[in-house]
Amino acid sequence: MKTVAVILSGCGHLDGAEIRESVLSLLALELEGLSYRIFAPDSAQFHVVNHLAAEPEEGAERNVLQEAARIARGDISPLSELTVEEFDGLVLPGGFGVAKNLSDFAFKGAEGAADANLAAVVNGFYQAKKPIAAVCIAPAIIALILGKHAPTLTIGSDPGTAEQVEKTGAQHQNCATDDCVVDQQHLLVTSPAYMDDGASIKQVFAGISKAIKAFANLA
Amino acid sequence: MKTVAVILSGCGHLDGAEIRESVLSLLALELEGLSYRIFAPDSAQFHVVNHLAAEPEEGAERNVLQEAARIARGDISPLSELTVEEFDGLVLPGGFGVAKNLSDFAFKGAEGAADANLAAVVNGFYQAKKPIAAVCIAPAIIALILGKHAPTLTIGSDPGTAEQVEKTGAQHQNCATDDCVVDQQHLLVTSPAYMDDGASIKQVFAGISKAIKAFANLA
Repeated sequence: MKTVAVILSGCGHLDGAEIRESVLSLLALELEGLSYRIFAPDSAQFHVVNHLAAEPEEGAERNVLQEAARIARGDISPLSELTVEEFDGLVLPGGFGVAKNLSDFAFKGAEGAADANLAAVVNGFYQAKKPIAAVCIAPAIIALILGKHAPTLTIGSDPGTAEQVEKTGAQHQNCATDDCVVDQQHLLVTSPAYMDDGASIKQVFAGISKAIKAFANLA
Repeated sequence: MKTVAVILSGCGHLDGAEIRESVLSLLALELEGLSYRIFAPDSAQFHVVNHLAAEPEEGAERNVLQEAARIARGDISPLSELTVEEFDGLVLPGGFGVAKNLSDFAFKGAEGAADANLAAVVNGFYQAKKPIAAVCIAPAIIALILGKHAPTLTIGSDPGTAEQVEKTGAQHQNCATDDCVVDQQHLLVTSPAYMDDGASIKQVFAGISKAIKAFANLA
């Protein structure tokens, strides 16, 4: 059985991994017959957001690995231990955690940079010609790392974010929530998921399922 | 379209709602054509558990409603605002939060009691002959409330928990993770999900899907 690495960025869409995208990615992987191991950086979250008020909590601190362990049910390892050679592909669910904890894209857009560990991992999978699937805002961080190779990807249809993505050298393609974009040349599959805040969980699952099916075919 | 109420007990299986069961329940509801609204008590968690170490964090405090809002993406209301008349049924995903935040079953077993708000809501749905679906450990808390009516339910196949459940007057029936138990007379559907720690997410989804399908037929 092929095994892929999944990287989470916390637990909650405003300060960590988008929970539903994370769970539905794991489900889609199993349904495609792929095994997985989950990783997250052992570092402090950029901040903690009260998801009821949608406002940051002054002075609160949480650890990305510990919070991601909630989704992983404790079965998770530090991102620093991820070895590309052990895996057949890489999956990145979305959530603001990708843009705040795994990079500073949320604040600097195309001028931002990915976490050094993440950049090394993504470059490693790319160089080894192993496929990468990225959901929601995660493709923007893939663009920060791989934009110079001009991959085609989607973050849905938000013009502002698409413009930042294209500044990295990546080609943006609009895509519906229940669909995905497959770049066969760069072995990159992307799907917008909750980039549309009003998306239904059924649509999100349809898009992630298509993305993971295409990813499994490339793995 | 029929609308059901979903009650969450936090965000993380050791101190709140089981995240995967919650997300998969929402997905299953939408796939069955049911609309939903999400509720959680606006109260402090019994404790906060570091899900990496699986140990409580000394002095840490979190609010059940705020944490459940992570799964609900902010679209959530206090449990005190749940009115039975507005809904066609009730869904309770599992996680230790149900046994720690919505009741004290985790500590007192059959001698424990459910949160007064939750008990009123569950009794309300039962009296109104509207169906209830409960997953994982949640059926044990349903048993605390409705055990005197002798419903048939499952918490999987753990003999110790089943013994506590039967002390309430409920009838326990063993059940595999990918299946569910339907009590037509009491309009109660239950599925074990992550009562088996080693269950696969695919099996859990199969069980929850069957449960929600049976629940939809009763609603």
